[in-house]
Amino acid sequence: MLEALKQEVFEANLELPRHGLIKYTWGNVSAIDRKEKLFVIKPSGVSYEAMKADDMVVCDLDRKVVEGKLNPSSDTPTHAVLYKHFAEIGGIVHTHSTWATIWAQAGLDVPAMGTTHADTFYGSVPCTRYLTQEEIDRGYEESTGDIIIQTFNERKLDPLAVPGVLLHGHGPFTWGKDAKSAVMNAVVLNEVCKMNLFTRSLNSFAEELPQRILDKHYLRKHGKDAYYGQK
Amino acid sequence: MLEALKQEVFEANLELPRHGLIKYTWGNVSAIDRKEKLFVIKPSGVSYEAMKADDMVVCDLDRKVVEGKLNPSSDTPTHAVLYKHFAEIGGIVHTHSTWATIWAQAGLDVPAMGTTHADTFYGSVPCTRYLTQEEIDRGYEESTGDIIIQTFNERKLDPLAVPGVLLHGHGPFTWGKDAKSAVMNAVVLNEVCKMNLFTRSLNSFAEELPQRILDKHYLRKHGKDAYYGQK
Amino acid sequence: MLEALKQEVFEANLELPRHGLIKYTWGNVSAIDRKEKLFVIKPSGVSYEAMKADDMVVCDLDRKVVEGKLNPSSDTPTHAVLYKHFAEIGGIVHTHSTWATIWAQAGLDVPAMGTTHADTFYGSVPCTRYLTQEEIDRGYEESTGDIIIQTFNERKLDPLAVPGVLLHGHGPFTWGKDAKSAVMNAVVLNEVCKMNLFTRSLNSFAEELPQRILDKHYLRKHGKDAYYGQK
Amino acid sequence: MLEALKQEVFEANLELPRHGLIKYTWGNVSAIDRKEKLFVIKPSGVSYEAMKADDMVVCDLDRKVVEGKLNPSSDTPTHAVLYKHFAEIGGIVHTHSTWATIWAQAGLDVPAMGTTHADTFYGSVPCTRYLTQEEIDRGYEESTGDIIIQTFNERKLDPLAVPGVLLHGHGPFTWGKDAKSAVMNAVVLNEVCKMNLFTRSLNSFAEELPQRILDKHYLRKHGKDAYYGQK
Repeated sequence: MLEALKQEVFEANLELPRHGLIKYTWGNVSAIDRKEKLFVIKPSGVSYEAMKADDMVVCDLDRKVVEGKLNPSSDTPTHAVLYKHFAEIGGIVHTHSTWATIWAQAGLDVPAMGTTHADTFYGSVPCTRYLTQEEIDRGYEESTGDIIIQTFNERKLDPLAVPGVLLHGHGPFTWGKDAKSAVMNAVVLNEVCKMNLFTRSLNSFAEELPQRILDKHYLRKHGKDAYYGQK
Repeated sequence: MLEALKQEVFEANLELPRHGLIKYTWGNVSAIDRKEKLFVIKPSGVSYEAMKADDMVVCDLDRKVVEGKLNPSSDTPTHAVLYKHFAEIGGIVHTHSTWATIWAQAGLDVPAMGTTHADTFYGSVPCTRYLTQEEIDRGYEESTGDIIIQTFNERKLDPLAVPGVLLHGHGPFTWGKDAKSAVMNAVVLNEVCKMNLFTRSLNSFAEELPQRILDKHYLRKHGKDAYYGQK
Repeated sequence: MLEALKQEVFEANLELPRHGLIKYTWGNVSAIDRKEKLFVIKPSGVSYEAMKADDMVVCDLDRKVVEGKLNPSSDTPTHAVLYKHFAEIGGIVHTHSTWATIWAQAGLDVPAMGTTHADTFYGSVPCTRYLTQEEIDRGYEESTGDIIIQTFNERKLDPLAVPGVLLHGHGPFTWGKDAKSAVMNAVVLNEVCKMNLFTRSLNSFAEELPQRILDKHYLRKHGKDAYYGQK
Repeated sequence: MLEALKQEVFEANLELPRHGLIKYTWGNVSAIDRKEKLFVIKPSGVSYEAMKADDMVVCDLDRKVVEGKLNPSSDTPTHAVLYKHFAEIGGIVHTHSTWATIWAQAGLDVPAMGTTHADTFYGSVPCTRYLTQEEIDRGYEESTGDIIIQTFNERKLDPLAVPGVLLHGHGPFTWGKDAKSAVMNAVVLNEVCKMNLFTRSLNSFAEELPQRILDKHYLRKHGKDAYYGQK
């Protein structure tokens, strides 16, 4: 069942330690088959060395396991909520990558301070508020998804133009058209978090990127007249 | 004698350079056989490249060598004290890992500022005071163990819920149910020390994690209703 | 066509990830054949794992593709402008390397604070201003080249003595007598950006290197009486 | 001639990139045969990939080349001065390692803030003053040696107890009983420079290690009653 997608999700999971985004089992990648309304996700707490493509778990959008011998990631309900509400995304990544987690712990939005950011994120990456006791009791992982949706709605953000978020005190989620691009967005977010922290440390008056440069860089890669890469 | 445990301790020692926690021979791992009341520890000052499982040294809880051609780690008396007083732990790790050592040199407890911390340590990781001249003269390494026990007693900390400590001006000790989990706790402690340092540098008003999130994350992994990982 | 130069540019491109200067495809190297007035450059957005020497694209100084199946780097017009105006350079590198990009985001010139800098850059490495809307509209990548030339002219800098620049909010360009030395200059610039940031963080009163030491180090490697290395 | 020492120096040079202390050719190791009054040193500007044991250059204490096809390191006169005045040292290392160079650029002595430092350096590692124009004109590399000797004399430091120094605006020299231990001291110095920088950044009131702990750690490894390691 969904063998090609399992292989894709498996390989995207292995990208996380390769890019230095995770230690041990602290991360997970999923990807969705929109036609079947099923997504494939990493099993919970399984080591990357032992994991096989066949260990990936298939879930439906109510986060019920449809196929798989192992428990899915404990963050599965968050993935399910994101797939439900962000209709155009195809893959999701959660990590505790060092620099993005630092901004999450600091409780700050990540401002667009350079073109490395602008090439991928069209404006600030938002940081959510903490969950309330009530939200935790209702279901921590599902409420985590809800607070992300709420944050994007309140700020009127397009999840494709800003493909990531920080959870206050926790860490980043990123997404993309598929698992692979969600991983790339996780790499970018971690890197710009590192760069921006030290930019402000070097020059506390450092400005955000002017809007005209943000526009130019985002649009030369993502707009309808994009001219980066190969056709 | 205790061949399986020697192999386990040997492999756990090799994990230290692999995770970037030590340079040269600056670290040691041990594990205990509670039935035999004997623990196995790395020999002193032997390089990781040359070391073999068979070089591990077997000691009793009075830290006498029971088997082994080599001198045990000079920190052996500290390990013995910890095994004596923390009856439920099975493995111990000492390193000079960069970021944990920085907090030890700064003489500060490590506050729980994120869920990476909360997944492993249920609250702040304490930093001990310096040893007095008298304590040093009585036996430096044994007194090091004593000051750890004293710190946990005074603060009424459960060593399983907070499986690590910083020694002021020195570095971290961590422990766990076995050698492998003690190493993992060493990795986590070093990582949260890095994250927390830069979190405060980025936002000097950054708060500790709210108690409700600390509870949720610690308990979803360690409480009796834990649901992380596989059964 | 220019097979040897393609091989050289290909290998220099592979040096970038090896030195930790880039992630994914965020960088490009080119080199020029001054007799043929043609330069060879990396194709746009092609992964380093898949890339072959034969994928390199040959362009003329009006940045028209002369040979190649793939689109050249989107930064090709910047390379063309630099080759036109800096008559003595043979290779160019663009990266988003972490520490040089941090200084670019901070909008600051990189002062010569040590001999690591002085061995390669004879004085501060300048940071350009942002491009105006008009300059962006006229052609972003070409204007990027123009602003570099303008910066060097205004400050009366010799591009061989100061073989690099930062673009405000973007990142570094470096160059050299060939592709290989342009890569080395990119490595040096990134490293001195890291060192200088932390030097100032450690001692906010830290001075620039005295002129006499700057002279000595630059000239023992680059002057007519240079005595570093082998003849 | 001195084939065993050449092999030793060659291997110690290769340790530098392996420990992340140098990039390209920015470093050199030498070792002396005290009976023959000859030392073996890395050739100048030769890449570590291409270098062979046989390329090492043999020099006398007046830094004349006694054997070797290649030019010796441009820092050879500094090594010669150190061997002449520090009669008990057997090996010398020079690098531009990131964190030690940062302290050198900051112009600050490295205080003993932890036991990682105390295990190797018995007190602060001094930073020299800049050379004067006259000293540079007289011979830059030889004067560099002289200023190190002068610094140790003025401060009444024992070069075996404090086996390293920082040159203001330049970087570290370390030494030891042989090439291998000089490399280890270079690794330690770089690491404590990193730790101390961030210790002060985390807690600007962080103290130096109390004298009693400094004594204990240095002497358990180096005093006549040392008990660290194997006999």
